[in-house]
Amino acid sequence: MILQETIDVIKRGCDELLLETELNNKLALGRPLRIKAGFDPTAPDLHLGHTVLLNKMRQLQELGHHALFLIGDFTGMIGDPTGKNTTRPPLTREQVLENAESYREQVFKVLDPDKTEIVFNSTWMDKFSAADLIKLAATHTVARMLERDDFGKRYKNNQAIAIHEFIYPLIQGYDSVTLKADIELGGSDQKFNLLMGRELQKHYGQPPQCVLTMPLLLGLDGVNKMSKSLGNYIGITESPQEMFGKLMSVSDKLMWSYLELLSFESMSTIAKWRAEVEQGRNPRDIKVLLAQEIVTRFHSRAAAEMALAEFEARFKQGVLPEDMPEVSVSASTGIIGITQLLKQAGLVDSTSEALRMITQGAIKLDGERVIDKTLQLQMGVVVVAQVGKRKFARVTVS
Amino acid sequence: MILQETIDVIKRGCDELLLETELNNKLALGRPLRIKAGFDPTAPDLHLGHTVLLNKMRQLQELGHHALFLIGDFTGMIGDPTGKNTTRPPLTREQVLENAESYREQVFKVLDPDKTEIVFNSTWMDKFSAADLIKLAATHTVARMLERDDFGKRYKNNQAIAIHEFIYPLIQGYDSVTLKADIELGGSDQKFNLLMGRELQKHYGQPPQCVLTMPLLLGLDGVNKMSKSLGNYIGITESPQEMFGKLMSVSDKLMWSYLELLSFESMSTIAKWRAEVEQGRNPRDIKVLLAQEIVTRFHSRAAAEMALAEFEARFKQGVLPEDMPEVSVSASTGIIGITQLLKQAGLVDSTSEALRMITQGAIKLDGERVIDKTLQLQMGVVVVAQVGKRKFARVTVS
Repeated sequence: MILQETIDVIKRGCDELLLETELNNKLALGRPLRIKAGFDPTAPDLHLGHTVLLNKMRQLQELGHHALFLIGDFTGMIGDPTGKNTTRPPLTREQVLENAESYREQVFKVLDPDKTEIVFNSTWMDKFSAADLIKLAATHTVARMLERDDFGKRYKNNQAIAIHEFIYPLIQGYDSVTLKADIELGGSDQKFNLLMGRELQKHYGQPPQCVLTMPLLLGLDGVNKMSKSLGNYIGITESPQEMFGKLMSVSDKLMWSYLELLSFESMSTIAKWRAEVEQGRNPRDIKVLLAQEIVTRFHSRAAAEMALAEFEARFKQGVLPEDMPEVSVSASTGIIGITQLLKQAGLVDSTSEALRMITQGAIKLDGERVIDKTLQLQMGVVVVAQVGKRKFARVTVS
Repeated sequence: MILQETIDVIKRGCDELLLETELNNKLALGRPLRIKAGFDPTAPDLHLGHTVLLNKMRQLQELGHHALFLIGDFTGMIGDPTGKNTTRPPLTREQVLENAESYREQVFKVLDPDKTEIVFNSTWMDKFSAADLIKLAATHTVARMLERDDFGKRYKNNQAIAIHEFIYPLIQGYDSVTLKADIELGGSDQKFNLLMGRELQKHYGQPPQCVLTMPLLLGLDGVNKMSKSLGNYIGITESPQEMFGKLMSVSDKLMWSYLELLSFESMSTIAKWRAEVEQGRNPRDIKVLLAQEIVTRFHSRAAAEMALAEFEARFKQGVLPEDMPEVSVSASTGIIGITQLLKQAGLVDSTSEALRMITQGAIKLDGERVIDKTLQLQMGVVVVAQVGKRKFARVTVS
């Protein structure tokens, strides 16, 4: 592959690459580059949003590079030293190792185990003395830290910033020094911390790492980032049917971003599909390809086939209209009852009509008949709601 | 001694005592209190300004309390981790011990060795891990640190504050926790750091130390704080003659502050002297008593007697007029030539007159004939300049 193609693969879906010229030079070295990405040591329960970064690591592995999967357990084992956050108690070494095992099971569905090294920053940070930490803290100024968006805002709004919070980005940066990272990957919200790594590497006489930030994947609602607490997520351990159904529920617009960030299909293939859709091909076909790819990755080819078959059986081929209206209903308390949802979506005129239709078995959500009149849906959920044979809407609970 | 008298002795010359009610309670315990004061681990060359604090410790020792003379060598052995201050290289353990020896020789002229414990904070801080330091840093907020005057000003003026500078006051405060200090003494400029000790002791479940701040002693010029770099100081290792002469050069007003902060005479004796001076007694008599007390402390009674005799012989009794004018001359480059000094002081009309008077042997400084026409005086110096038999001025080089 020629250099420009390599760069194009690396930049695919990226928010920012700093600095491209440096990356060129590093690639020209011809050796496997050391790709760092840091992960929380708390119990992992990954969803597709997390895999955006893993996919990028995987792409880099396919280009011959070496992934350093860093578990930031040093600070995790300290917990919340202010004692304010009781939901963040210190982790024991055993918990850290257990969580690492759970990571391993999940991430090796994406990463190539032969080119992945799982490392723990406690390995070097446990040996750090108070004096070492003071020297590290001396490398940066208070003003520099307050440049970080969230710190700056909190300081301005008189919200407490405990002093050790200034130390954590430095430790994260120092990890890059120890690991001699060539590239660090992170979410866009991590840019400041990734740049710390660059600065500290320079300070310690190393060539600075390149920084590659990935955007946050939008959730099924197409509005908020994918997040477990918002309910708009697809967990990577969900069943093939759930995963398939949820992927089929994304909007025709959001699909393209999912393809860029989640699919391993080449950008040229995706461009071809986009052209086809523009010329009239049903976007649903492409969504099926995406859903099958993802289900295959996290389950198997067979599971993907079966999920497709079930999905198509449920919706009966051709029943779903091309131009289904997309509506939003508001769950002010975080949840919404089925009757309220149908009313707000304009599918029924009244609560009593909704109740009657449920009794008649005329209501379906994602192709499944609704029997429970007290059914509640969580904020962030996206479903295809159906009344009778002809009335449909893709409903987002927001 | 009844409690109120004890409190009065403790408060003598103090800037601030926090909190008096707590001090009352501590004194009521009836046990020797642990009195902490921190000192720089760099080579000590103490002047009378430094002894203000030592005097207060001595007074507390005489009340039966235990002095903890803390040498802050932990940070001294780190040096200036930013590497910007090349004049502050890290100290070795040997240098620290040498400096401690030098402290011992000097401070035991004031402190009672039997009630003094010299301690080094490296003893506990060397065992501190990075994790321990993070927990310590978590006890305070960035906003709290920026409340410290100098930090606040520097931040406002966009002057760099390295992050480790926020950690140093915490370490100083943690020293109080380890030492279980009951009272900490410091200069007024140290108040913020001393309060850290209180806060950290509370955090670690200890009764908080009382804080006693002492004012900075003014230098011989009566304007700036006594400081070696300003040249307006009296070193405690200076000769009896120098010490005596310099003390006699202080103004009649400054003398009272020196008596309060440097003399061990009781406040009632000093009040009596003040009344006598108000009723016409020559303040010079009191200055002699002060000068003799200080020379006796740092040399001997005999040396003090000899210094007085020499001083009086030089100035010949009665020659110095009561109402000598006090003038200031300006040394814009930090030093001033003798001819310029005489001119600016209004003692001669021109440089040529000054030179002629020197040739004639008619110029004296502090009673000593000036021969060298190129003699230069340093900023901060205070001398009695004399032209012929009748023209005098107390000249401050500023």
